[in-house]
Amino acid sequence: MEKSIIFLCFFVVMTTFSCAQKADNDINTPTETNFSSELIVEDLEIPWGMVFLPDGSMLITEKSGKIIHFKDGEKIMINNVPEVYYRGQGGLMDIELHPDYASNGWLYLSYSSEEGSGSGGNTAIMRAKLNNNSLTNKELLYKASPNTTKGQHFGSRLEFDNNGYLYFSIGDRGSRDENPQNIRRNGGKIYRIHDDGRIPEDNPFVGTQGAVEAAYTYGNRNPQGMAKNPVTGAIWIHEHGPRGGDEINIVQKGVNYGWPVITYGINYSGTPITDITEKEGMEQPVYYWVPSIGPSGMTFVNSNKFPDWKGNLLVGSLAFQYLERLELEDNKVTYREKLMDGIGRVRNVRQGPDGLIYVAVEGKGIYRLSPNTSSN
Amino acid sequence: MEKSIIFLCFFVVMTTFSCAQKADNDINTPTETNFSSELIVEDLEIPWGMVFLPDGSMLITEKSGKIIHFKDGEKIMINNVPEVYYRGQGGLMDIELHPDYASNGWLYLSYSSEEGSGSGGNTAIMRAKLNNNSLTNKELLYKASPNTTKGQHFGSRLEFDNNGYLYFSIGDRGSRDENPQNIRRNGGKIYRIHDDGRIPEDNPFVGTQGAVEAAYTYGNRNPQGMAKNPVTGAIWIHEHGPRGGDEINIVQKGVNYGWPVITYGINYSGTPITDITEKEGMEQPVYYWVPSIGPSGMTFVNSNKFPDWKGNLLVGSLAFQYLERLELEDNKVTYREKLMDGIGRVRNVRQGPDGLIYVAVEGKGIYRLSPNTSSN
Repeated sequence: MEKSIIFLCFFVVMTTFSCAQKADNDINTPTETNFSSELIVEDLEIPWGMVFLPDGSMLITEKSGKIIHFKDGEKIMINNVPEVYYRGQGGLMDIELHPDYASNGWLYLSYSSEEGSGSGGNTAIMRAKLNNNSLTNKELLYKASPNTTKGQHFGSRLEFDNNGYLYFSIGDRGSRDENPQNIRRNGGKIYRIHDDGRIPEDNPFVGTQGAVEAAYTYGNRNPQGMAKNPVTGAIWIHEHGPRGGDEINIVQKGVNYGWPVITYGINYSGTPITDITEKEGMEQPVYYWVPSIGPSGMTFVNSNKFPDWKGNLLVGSLAFQYLERLELEDNKVTYREKLMDGIGRVRNVRQGPDGLIYVAVEGKGIYRLSPNTSSN
Repeated sequence: MEKSIIFLCFFVVMTTFSCAQKADNDINTPTETNFSSELIVEDLEIPWGMVFLPDGSMLITEKSGKIIHFKDGEKIMINNVPEVYYRGQGGLMDIELHPDYASNGWLYLSYSSEEGSGSGGNTAIMRAKLNNNSLTNKELLYKASPNTTKGQHFGSRLEFDNNGYLYFSIGDRGSRDENPQNIRRNGGKIYRIHDDGRIPEDNPFVGTQGAVEAAYTYGNRNPQGMAKNPVTGAIWIHEHGPRGGDEINIVQKGVNYGWPVITYGINYSGTPITDITEKEGMEQPVYYWVPSIGPSGMTFVNSNKFPDWKGNLLVGSLAFQYLERLELEDNKVTYREKLMDGIGRVRNVRQGPDGLIYVAVEGKGIYRLSPNTSSN
């Protein structure tokens, strides 16, 4: 009964976004740019997450299981990092600071972990503090189950909203027919918890028999980009599609994003996954890419350093190795541009506290984008 | 003609060491020790090499391909480290300083590299300088060939002798029937070069048609310990045997150490490799272990901090996870002791410039052994 009321509610929300926008194939590649880039952190392997500490230094996660504190040009290794289940797409993934980090010192990590029973691993969320180059006060806030030796789709982006809730993603773990549409299973969902791991009472599945109460959405495939829209406060995500069908979605309470019942993608082999792209009760993406760009990392620009980019969304492309800039108007993309073409597999992008843009590239390191200064 | 003269010469040398000593199975495990250990570098994965810079700080290689500068309690990552072929036993391996490091700044690395033609990799030796946390002036001094995708037996220890020659080891690369006994092939040998990579004119195979002129010995399996005897100046090595038959040898010009024609070991499967342990023209080991301890790292003690250990040899055990202390007299082992029993896979051991002993353990880090202070 309660469930049907909730679904009715979703439907109303859904109609607002019922028209999905496909990425224009003619992406613009400007020959001249208004910025210059500098490789400020060299020699990284697979930099996954990055955050800025109050002193302007950075913490960078390497997928292999390391946290690097980049400060005054030196890369200092952090000790006592949790053991990661390093397999396939798994490893040490995202890192975020508590909104009140300056006063409480909590930082948040996502990683693949063997914690719990069963062979293999699954996504874990931890908070900890940083003292003397070592993680202390470690608290495991969430550990997805069951463990599996599959190496796919850990999800793992972290983001806080304006009310202090922590959101994180868990991918479908390669079991698309079991996980995403089943609210009793962990895979293929966006989660929402309090900063200490407690489950908010108004989470959509709280009280539903057997449901994963920490879950906030379902029907997701593998979200590896998550950013708070600085204007609306909404949490935006993007997710990897299969062959085609990468999506941008806006996280809304209890919404079903449809994977794998609806998708704009097909199997890697070329065979169809489903013959429908829309279904009642399932949310349409805000935007989708065919072919897949392999999105990883996402940030909104609201910096005065890049006045022309204000309100834009930046998305890394693993597959095509560039940074995508999307101009938005009323949650619609009005312009699509390719930046840093051929730079390498872009794993993450963030706006720093200095208003500059930081781009993490596999096998290279972290580039800082600065606006060109006017010559007159 | 020249060759037969050389072999005659070997035989004379060989007779001096013709009686090999087997490790006593009753290894002593003292219940009380005269030292205490402290984990001074935490959170290392597979620390392979370590050296001490003139300021007392350390450079540590991680097999995965990183150099860590451990200074004032911080682990600073070094940039611009050569790309390693990270497979099986290969990766970034040893590190040594030039004897005149303080004036010329040269440091030496061994690693597995894909350099050159053919798929796979083989052992490489590089020298470089350290500037602003980055390797500069990189010079590839030696690269073994052919490349192979086999992951075994890269060898890779480095050591300088008192005349400024650099010795390094290359294992048989898993091709025991092709490499060690063939002086035209790179695998299964100890090498001797000048500090800049030039081949010394008095190397034993210089002038021999088709021979590997940088080679100094042959018939070696996989030497992963190498240390200069501080009293005699001789270069000592140990090598991994197969199942049983780990050896300690003293490096002598042009000598054939017999692998795989003679060995005290058998195949891992239990089948014999050969039915002989001695042969004319092939050197007997100074000492050998059955069963194998999996030796890795070796140092002579000549520190006043450990007067009871002066002249002893310390050897790490990967397989049995302890540090072996060997008392020596006239190149014979007179006492065998197990230290740090169960500490983990010991990868390396060195005496520091402070006279203390440093032990690198996989998955843990670097322990420093200090003598217990007398209580009266």
